Amino acid sequence: MNPNSADGLSSGTEDGQEIKSLSMFSHPYNKTITMAAIAKAAGVSQGAISSLLNDRDYGIRVSEKTRKRVFKACRELGYIPNDLRAVVRMYPELGDLCLLVSGSIADWAINPFFARVLKGAIGASSAAMRHITLAEYDENADYLENPDLLPSPIRSGTASKFICIGTMNFSLVQALLKRDFPVVFLGCDVSIPGVTTVQADYAEASKLAVDHLLKAGHRHIAIVSGPFGSEDHAIAELNRGIRLCYEHSGIPFDTQNIIHGDLSFKSGAAAIDVLFSRNQKPTAVFCLSDEAAAGAWSRAQSLGLKVPGDLSIVGCADEPIASQLNLTTIHLPAEEIGAQAVKDVESRVLKGTLLESRKIVLPVHSIERKSTASAISA
Amino acid sequence: MNPNSADGLSSGTEDGQEIKSLSMFSHPYNKTITMAAIAKAAGVSQGAISSLLNDRDYGIRVSEKTRKRVFKACRELGYIPNDLRAVVRMYPELGDLCLLVSGSIADWAINPFFARVLKGAIGASSAAMRHITLAEYDENADYLENPDLLPSPIRSGTASKFICIGTMNFSLVQALLKRDFPVVFLGCDVSIPGVTTVQADYAEASKLAVDHLLKAGHRHIAIVSGPFGSEDHAIAELNRGIRLCYEHSGIPFDTQNIIHGDLSFKSGAAAIDVLFSRNQKPTAVFCLSDEAAAGAWSRAQSLGLKVPGDLSIVGCADEPIASQLNLTTIHLPAEEIGAQAVKDVESRVLKGTLLESRKIVLPVHSIERKSTASAISA
Repeated sequence: MNPNSADGLSSGTEDGQEIKSLSMFSHPYNKTITMAAIAKAAGVSQGAISSLLNDRDYGIRVSEKTRKRVFKACRELGYIPNDLRAVVRMYPELGDLCLLVSGSIADWAINPFFARVLKGAIGASSAAMRHITLAEYDENADYLENPDLLPSPIRSGTASKFICIGTMNFSLVQALLKRDFPVVFLGCDVSIPGVTTVQADYAEASKLAVDHLLKAGHRHIAIVSGPFGSEDHAIAELNRGIRLCYEHSGIPFDTQNIIHGDLSFKSGAAAIDVLFSRNQKPTAVFCLSDEAAAGAWSRAQSLGLKVPGDLSIVGCADEPIASQLNLTTIHLPAEEIGAQAVKDVESRVLKGTLLESRKIVLPVHSIERKSTASAISA
Repeated sequence: MNPNSADGLSSGTEDGQEIKSLSMFSHPYNKTITMAAIAKAAGVSQGAISSLLNDRDYGIRVSEKTRKRVFKACRELGYIPNDLRAVVRMYPELGDLCLLVSGSIADWAINPFFARVLKGAIGASSAAMRHITLAEYDENADYLENPDLLPSPIRSGTASKFICIGTMNFSLVQALLKRDFPVVFLGCDVSIPGVTTVQADYAEASKLAVDHLLKAGHRHIAIVSGPFGSEDHAIAELNRGIRLCYEHSGIPFDTQNIIHGDLSFKSGAAAIDVLFSRNQKPTAVFCLSDEAAAGAWSRAQSLGLKVPGDLSIVGCADEPIASQLNLTTIHLPAEEIGAQAVKDVESRVLKGTLLESRKIVLPVHSIERKSTASAISA
């Protein structure tokens, strides 16, 4: 036992090694700490402690104050409960890291941006815990009304660090905060006490893209945007950035040149068909995804157009396909978003629910490759 | 309690609902089943039961026969242990599903084939368990010698179904089989009792590709293969299929046309540079990945070659990039590999270690798109 370790984390294993992960509890553990000793240290009755440690619902049968006092005493004594879920409640830093992805993100497992976030998250998770659990949540479920619908990793009680990807579900956040777990949300921008949001500076991303084209002399710039009226935060911010950039430049923005789609390769190709069937053809196109930009490029080539001679194309995100095709694009720091989310959730897990919200906006930058040229050369 | 349910799974929750996932144990559970009742039902001493249920190391302190008898009695009585890990040992069908990926697969999180396997695995996992844990294993670790190095999900004891992706590590398999967990290995082809391998019919895949080009009249076919001397099972099988196809056709196989690389986009582009700097230029190229094929196509275009007029290109895998570029390729059923792996591991988890090995080879098929033409038209 080492109740005075620097980080306040004492060890209860018999061989005295520090507790670094849940898996260490697969070894024989210290059973010499009695309920009576904990009761004495915490200044509460043995009955209250028994009730607390045997409660499957995160100790809500006793007051929060009592729970905190007992857990603090347990930690200082190096007591390790029998039940893994009680271990996680008492030592939340040892719980699993869980990525909760909105089920409404179609095919998220094969989404290249998600893959980069996952890569960043795995790379940043502390070495002893190098594993991550993936589960889906329902954006529209009322989890306070129907706690049985909560994603399994929340209900099973072995996870304690949650990173959500998708549109905000307040009942999900409340269910997590009720359990004193830190929550990070990616893909939305809402200030809730105890919740951190991590995102790229999307408005700046499209500002960089449009600025690049305007400075190259393009005055007929088409926009391949997401679904009209999309609730997606990234798309909303990217759209806003385009508008602000035009407003700031004083150059008129022809909104007839905005094509809505699902930002897939196909929708990028289809946008070119629409744009080049018109009398006034664009000399440049900014696509809000690299996939759409790749589709636009491919279709432009089929139509006999030279890229960038006849048409400059800018993508967005800097997925692998962008560097492969030598596509000018805006780098969105997906890996850093995953890494920052893990760092935030790991640093907050010991502190309990915080009153402040936290917003992390990560910088973006443009990468000029071979799909853009000045309008004069056209 | 429902000891006679059809699947042999009885319920021990107070409201009588069936046990479908670990998360259900977050609810108040049935405590009325005593050690004495279990001892009587299993015909062993209470001491043996206590020793077994409090053993963190999967009940190896007692004989396997005793353990099985006690667990059977517990299941029939609907007894649910206090500790989540004991629950998983007793009801292994309730344990988590875990994907163990070899750490030597660089950037596996952003590998499109892995993403498709993950998508298939998530889609196939039974609804109540729709979550999956990802962790890495070390191909070269001796996990029997150093059990502390085992991936956390194995040590923590809450996972019971394991799907490994990468080169075989026998000590990993033995560690899992010792715990009576079913193991599925993707990416290798080794017969071990209790282990299922799931793979695509790689040899058939390259046979289809080369056959397609030979039938189109091509006699100068280049091969963009993986690293020379690669231990990767898929690459070895793909190479073997090419050799067999030529042997079967009676057409001479010019091995000077084999270019080794890492099958990336860049390596496909570099292969074109090498091949077209030679006097005898190929009229077709079979790339063992779609990415390399995309790279080859891109570089061929830069050199002024028409695809498929001057050069036919066949890829392999049928990643999204293949349909986007209209690339002729061989479809490898990555999603089905993930789905079959989950189905196998879920169906075997209740049966304990099996004596037989199982090998599942899934069919492949060719997809003719616009990157291939007959040699005569060249």
